[in-house]
Amino acid sequence: MKLIRVGAEGQESPAVVDPKDGSALSAESVTPDYDVEFFGSDGLDRLRDALDAGSLPPLHSGNPRLGPPIKRPGKIIGIGLNYRDHALESNMPIPDEPILFMKAPNTVIGPYDDVRIPPGSTKTDWEVELGVIIGRQASYLRTPTEALSFVAGYTVSNDLSEREYQLERDGQWDKGKSCDTFNPLGPWLVTSDEIPDPQTLSLWLNIDNRREQTGHTSDMIFSVEHIVWFVSQFMVLEPGDLINTGTPAGVGLSRTPSCYLQPGQEMHLGIDALGEQRTRTIATPG
Amino acid sequence: MKLIRVGAEGQESPAVVDPKDGSALSAESVTPDYDVEFFGSDGLDRLRDALDAGSLPPLHSGNPRLGPPIKRPGKIIGIGLNYRDHALESNMPIPDEPILFMKAPNTVIGPYDDVRIPPGSTKTDWEVELGVIIGRQASYLRTPTEALSFVAGYTVSNDLSEREYQLERDGQWDKGKSCDTFNPLGPWLVTSDEIPDPQTLSLWLNIDNRREQTGHTSDMIFSVEHIVWFVSQFMVLEPGDLINTGTPAGVGLSRTPSCYLQPGQEMHLGIDALGEQRTRTIATPG
Repeated sequence: MKLIRVGAEGQESPAVVDPKDGSALSAESVTPDYDVEFFGSDGLDRLRDALDAGSLPPLHSGNPRLGPPIKRPGKIIGIGLNYRDHALESNMPIPDEPILFMKAPNTVIGPYDDVRIPPGSTKTDWEVELGVIIGRQASYLRTPTEALSFVAGYTVSNDLSEREYQLERDGQWDKGKSCDTFNPLGPWLVTSDEIPDPQTLSLWLNIDNRREQTGHTSDMIFSVEHIVWFVSQFMVLEPGDLINTGTPAGVGLSRTPSCYLQPGQEMHLGIDALGEQRTRTIATPG
Repeated sequence: MKLIRVGAEGQESPAVVDPKDGSALSAESVTPDYDVEFFGSDGLDRLRDALDAGSLPPLHSGNPRLGPPIKRPGKIIGIGLNYRDHALESNMPIPDEPILFMKAPNTVIGPYDDVRIPPGSTKTDWEVELGVIIGRQASYLRTPTEALSFVAGYTVSNDLSEREYQLERDGQWDKGKSCDTFNPLGPWLVTSDEIPDPQTLSLWLNIDNRREQTGHTSDMIFSVEHIVWFVSQFMVLEPGDLINTGTPAGVGLSRTPSCYLQPGQEMHLGIDALGEQRTRTIATPG
């Protein structure tokens, strides 16, 4: 299934893409939203039953905007330097184990929303990533081999990063990861049954129609199942949580010379089977 | 006012401590919980009006457990090395600007709940901290002088940290900050009108009746108003968010030799005017 959320910001209705014709079917008879309660109560099974039974009516929305495909997550975990080529271009060592950081959950926006360049920022950068959405509570999983059964699905995620804040100010990466609008998500949450192996996906990103990132999830240093197992050793993952699994080479930081986003540019990015997003950069309103 | 939440985990009722006799008055006629909606809709003003009018009935709760004084926050921001003596004991440089990190919001527990030592952990450490709870959305505040008006109140916070995970594994501090039960909070949220100057508070922590930390918020490198202003430059603070403002000297990492928590110990900590919490350490159930 492809889950979407449609409507004005903060007022999105849950819906499913009709596999027959691509139209939007309302999921409101199944759940008020795609949130921790939905994923944590076998909501995906109930939604599939309703879809298969043909009981979901067409979605009537006054506002056709696509929101992020999940309600605001309880937390966002980022995996640093998880593609060999990106670690090398960043002049960072290949990590011995996944590097974890966190991103404020209120950074999530829709796949066509505007991204705000922070006031005074000169180093706002892009990062196309495979987003993993957790389906069941996961704590101290015993082995990576069981970890994919805790995944609800996958989505396209742009882990925007302000490199000065992240790397040149005192401290931790989090400082450059949590600016307003810094996590466009979607268009769809594609359920994990449609992605039996998440290590088989191409991902790419263009800025103003110029290809900047081209990667493949088979090049991840740590696979999705390893990541979910690993993160569960350090915190309790909950239904609806988002893990951004790292970005391949081609970020602005690593261009020679480095090249960052300006207001008025377009980011166009996508992942095999997960769709595409287009966002424009704007200055933060003053 | 002193806000509390009473009841079983996940089923707490909001209440206020009666200033006359210390009993608990139900706030359920004002709000279902102390959450983003409550703080973001002048809930504190409505609660005060109801308290002053004498219209709050006694709380009848089947379970007298005190939960954390706010519902799970949207995010938790930590400030690193914000007391000079703690930076020195950690052999870390005095930061030029606040160091930010994040902690998973589902680490929050009540002020008398058990703290779980992660399986295999040998370096679980304590950190008494002044917790700041945000009352109004704060983004790109212009000056620190306006920042305290964005604070709903203050509480006692224990920013538990696994030092091996935080400092000896690849990456970022977040890895050691987000284990289950790692943020006991409370007993009370004391509203900011009762704490006109948050830089005037003593704070302390005992392990098994032995004094380990003794500090004073006047020794913060960056004041609360500076911190709230500063954090608002990097992310959008929302009502109900929690900022842990750093810990004074005396953590287990800095003892000679280092000394960490074992199952069966008691942490007893408090801050002037904000009350005390007592938590016991237990092994994580297998």
